[in-house]
Amino acid sequence: MTDTDIRGKIYSLTEKGLNSEVESELKGLIKPESIGIAQINPHPADFEYNSKKIVKYIRHAQNIGLNLVIFPEMSLSGFPLDDTTDRHPNLVEENVKWLRQIAKVTTETTALVGFAESVKDKKGKYYSSVAVLSDGKIQNIIRRQVLPAVSEFNDYLYIEASDDGAKTIIVNGKKCGIIVGDEDLASEDIISGIIKEQPEALIICSVSAMNPQKEYVKSNVLSFIAKKYSLPVIYVNQVGAADCVTFAGASRVYDKNGNLLARAKSFEEDFAVVNPDKNFGKINPLPEGLEQQEVAASFSLNYEPDLERTYKTIVQGIRDYFNKTGFKRAVLGLSGGLDSTVCAVLLADALGKENVFGVSMPSKITTDTSKSDAEQLAKNLGIGFAVAPIKDMVETTSSGLDELFNKVEGSWNCRYKQSYTLDNIQARSRAVILWGISNEFESCLPIATSDKSEAYMGYATINGDMSGGFAPIADVTKTKLFALARWLNKNREEKDVIPESVILKRPGAELAIDPNTGKPLCAEDALMPYEFMDEVIWRIENKKEHYNDLINAEFLYEKTHKLPREQKALWLDKFYRRMAGAMYKWSIMVPSVSVDKRYIGSSEYRQPITSSHLDYKGKSEEEIARCLN
Amino acid sequence: MTDTDIRGKIYSLTEKGLNSEVESELKGLIKPESIGIAQINPHPADFEYNSKKIVKYIRHAQNIGLNLVIFPEMSLSGFPLDDTTDRHPNLVEENVKWLRQIAKVTTETTALVGFAESVKDKKGKYYSSVAVLSDGKIQNIIRRQVLPAVSEFNDYLYIEASDDGAKTIIVNGKKCGIIVGDEDLASEDIISGIIKEQPEALIICSVSAMNPQKEYVKSNVLSFIAKKYSLPVIYVNQVGAADCVTFAGASRVYDKNGNLLARAKSFEEDFAVVNPDKNFGKINPLPEGLEQQEVAASFSLNYEPDLERTYKTIVQGIRDYFNKTGFKRAVLGLSGGLDSTVCAVLLADALGKENVFGVSMPSKITTDTSKSDAEQLAKNLGIGFAVAPIKDMVETTSSGLDELFNKVEGSWNCRYKQSYTLDNIQARSRAVILWGISNEFESCLPIATSDKSEAYMGYATINGDMSGGFAPIADVTKTKLFALARWLNKNREEKDVIPESVILKRPGAELAIDPNTGKPLCAEDALMPYEFMDEVIWRIENKKEHYNDLINAEFLYEKTHKLPREQKALWLDKFYRRMAGAMYKWSIMVPSVSVDKRYIGSSEYRQPITSSHLDYKGKSEEEIARCLN
Repeated sequence: MTDTDIRGKIYSLTEKGLNSEVESELKGLIKPESIGIAQINPHPADFEYNSKKIVKYIRHAQNIGLNLVIFPEMSLSGFPLDDTTDRHPNLVEENVKWLRQIAKVTTETTALVGFAESVKDKKGKYYSSVAVLSDGKIQNIIRRQVLPAVSEFNDYLYIEASDDGAKTIIVNGKKCGIIVGDEDLASEDIISGIIKEQPEALIICSVSAMNPQKEYVKSNVLSFIAKKYSLPVIYVNQVGAADCVTFAGASRVYDKNGNLLARAKSFEEDFAVVNPDKNFGKINPLPEGLEQQEVAASFSLNYEPDLERTYKTIVQGIRDYFNKTGFKRAVLGLSGGLDSTVCAVLLADALGKENVFGVSMPSKITTDTSKSDAEQLAKNLGIGFAVAPIKDMVETTSSGLDELFNKVEGSWNCRYKQSYTLDNIQARSRAVILWGISNEFESCLPIATSDKSEAYMGYATINGDMSGGFAPIADVTKTKLFALARWLNKNREEKDVIPESVILKRPGAELAIDPNTGKPLCAEDALMPYEFMDEVIWRIENKKEHYNDLINAEFLYEKTHKLPREQKALWLDKFYRRMAGAMYKWSIMVPSVSVDKRYIGSSEYRQPITSSHLDYKGKSEEEIARCLN
Repeated sequence: MTDTDIRGKIYSLTEKGLNSEVESELKGLIKPESIGIAQINPHPADFEYNSKKIVKYIRHAQNIGLNLVIFPEMSLSGFPLDDTTDRHPNLVEENVKWLRQIAKVTTETTALVGFAESVKDKKGKYYSSVAVLSDGKIQNIIRRQVLPAVSEFNDYLYIEASDDGAKTIIVNGKKCGIIVGDEDLASEDIISGIIKEQPEALIICSVSAMNPQKEYVKSNVLSFIAKKYSLPVIYVNQVGAADCVTFAGASRVYDKNGNLLARAKSFEEDFAVVNPDKNFGKINPLPEGLEQQEVAASFSLNYEPDLERTYKTIVQGIRDYFNKTGFKRAVLGLSGGLDSTVCAVLLADALGKENVFGVSMPSKITTDTSKSDAEQLAKNLGIGFAVAPIKDMVETTSSGLDELFNKVEGSWNCRYKQSYTLDNIQARSRAVILWGISNEFESCLPIATSDKSEAYMGYATINGDMSGGFAPIADVTKTKLFALARWLNKNREEKDVIPESVILKRPGAELAIDPNTGKPLCAEDALMPYEFMDEVIWRIENKKEHYNDLINAEFLYEKTHKLPREQKALWLDKFYRRMAGAMYKWSIMVPSVSVDKRYIGSSEYRQPITSSHLDYKGKSEEEIARCLN
């Protein structure tokens, strides 16, 4: 068997998963210096699930004769744990017990396994550590020294930064430097400390929340270190999603010249075999958008370079949320509009079309096109479909309410002349139907279909389209969704599943009639153009601009349209007023997947609802002086 | 005028608020060494509101001839800000602008004002600082050095710990040591550092989230320091609620012998005048339960010693949430059950009975007693009331769903034999009605009436009784609610507003009929006795016990009932299984007020929903070994 034959075998093996027939054939053929990278997708705090997976890969590494198999940081414990260890104070000790038993499985093949190590005399605290396991024993432990301070996790309340950490160990006569976590990797002190010990290779075990700019920097840093110190660098990352957080995988190996030698898959569990000394490894392609050099200088409607990453992030997010919570099926309302349409496609890809059911729930406002578009989409996708008109529900509810409102008016002389009550009854009736299906059928979650532009505007209905067990596109703006819809039509195996008319029609909830046109009210008429709104969001999130910056900036929309300055100010005011009013809705956002750098779900963004009167414009000192006199 | 007369005048002045007539009469009568304690209730990030209040009290202090007026930490900025400064990057600079203008108002009366001080070269970061204002200028700034690490805030991401902090300043020839924040007060290094400068008095400006055990310790520490160093100690705290967090006020002064000389009101804004040298001050009473020496050694159904604090905490929480967000009115469903009844009383006390409207929404399961209890309560309280039967809504919804479910069954062969669909349709129909009223009437929020015991069990309905703009009793367990109901009947001015039958009946949602009795299903039959459940909650929260501790503990319920060990294990299993399943519901908990030491809203407790398969019992090493082989 030639080297190339072996490589082919190994790659097919790792692609097909573990296969004892191929394993035994290969045994002994792999160079003894080879290393396995077990890029796994653990479940937070599910030690049994995670341990079984770890043991499976350890045995596989033993079977094919590897020297070393490396797992990511916090593999055994899963990540994040957040407050889990606070409410379940035995968890850290439990995960250590599992580690001891995993150690017993090991032979001369060394395994590096990330776990939560209990801290002596500090109950509930733990180090993020990597255990060196071989010959049936825990041989050594390496601890993380530097902790991140980011708002999407609060594990830092429980994780202890260790005084000692990164160090070298000997694996089969070779000195390897081991580092735990991205922050330790970023510490010059830690790197120079370990380099002094003259390691022959550097291994970093990490659990790194995806962020395209960080991914880019990380790659460069890894390659730079490899070249500077002339040693192979092996970076092993978790893959998968836990609630809204994404780990992209893409574990990688650089040779001592700083060249990329191997890269594991992105957004998929993978077992990669590499040998930096023999130049042996496979480079899997990187989804477009996963490594972005920097935030774009200006807002653009050309989302194309980021859509593959966006798609894979959401599909993994849906799949893992369902898998890890034990749900299988999704039911959603199909309005014939863009949001629910894109959700349906993403759900079908994540869960399988047989596990998705779409319900068209027309009211008297729903147009015929919307009804037929919904049906056509379901047919194209091959998902379940039914029509359930809400006319009777809405009428019965409304007529009961009319009577009640008159009674309430007896106490409160403050009834609105115009209200959104009827609009909301429609949206809430639909949610009652979807939650009803979820109550009636096993392992089924209803889907919240609202998008990020609407979330900023507080435009979705409480207990209506905001409501569901999961919200696939809550972190995708409307203009990006249009681009994603076109991308899906072009890039999925089945082309053009989304009817063109869905993409062409102007978005609107079809909850009310526009008195000016006699047709369903369009969202842009009630709010402002999406192109403008999405640039405000983009600038706030990516450029950290505030109201006064925005007033003075030149928007793309201003370049392409004549926009009077007064109109711009009106829109910006409306944006900020609506955003302040949306804080309550943000606080009850259902679980979603975080796609962009900054997400607004309560796990990542927290602002007191009681701050709703803050002055977003600010005042001059003269105005302030007048206020105080 | 004798000393006593002056005191009487001053107290009545501070109790009635600011009154220029009395002010001018008193001017010059107050000893020039006197100090004003302005225990204010600022709104997070509403600088105009906060500054106007600060200026009002500064002018008042000037008018009555005080030397010094002290405001709490973060008075100008409000607290918490959490991510507010991240989304509005101009906020810190804005609050500094307001400070400069406040300074211009000052005369020879010195004012100490807590604010957010921008950090040079670190945009978005700020110190928690206190400015010393007098003669129209910012004379000095004292910074906080030590930060807390608690999960209910994430301000720590933005607050910078300062290298230098606590220091002495001269006020009217007197050397005063100034300390910012509870954590600086708790630092021995900081205290001994400032004592070396030989101050004549110690002033602590704080914004201290309420916790009865912490309140107790703090009082002792303040008294201890005063006595040890033989100098007066003045502690100025914020009062009020911001979202779920409570600041209790109760600012206080100890004389140089460590004796309590003055205490401002609890749960109320207050302006107190004190003179430690002249033994001049007023001690307001402390609500029962606000200072508790330690967590009780064992669970007890005697909640009496903590009910005044509980009541005042919730009433302040409701009042401030409505005030600070701009809402005035509350509408709630009155089922005739304990939860909605207690909520109605608390709302009436917080918002005024004219601002509360109760709706009885009987279904065919609702008993006659429940209907008449709801009506009687509304009558006793004097709140608005109407009856709106949900029979038609439920029937229309159910019949539409029956047809739809049959269609879904064509795709999914996994329909439950028994489901909660009908139960939930009832709860959701009621929420549609309440949200409808909130949509139709100005400044009106619907109320989520579910309690803490139900929250642990995930027993409340999504988009049903879980749903609302605010949840007054989400942090009160059921057995405590019974005690609170009795306490309300006894301690409110109007006695016995809660009908005795509400307190006597066994709780149940009246959503389903118990097939064994033919009567509405009681919650305890579906779950477990509340007395048992609430002890589990108490032990988890206060004793940090886990499943195995609980199995081995002797419960109060076991002392008073014969409880076979198998039954106990079954209940505990049910508790932990249901709690794991409730994580999604916890993540979308509506804003509430945190009453106990540990609250489960997403601002205070975060556990990944994807951790739902964690093994709460744990395993022995033998069991683990078997699992892995």
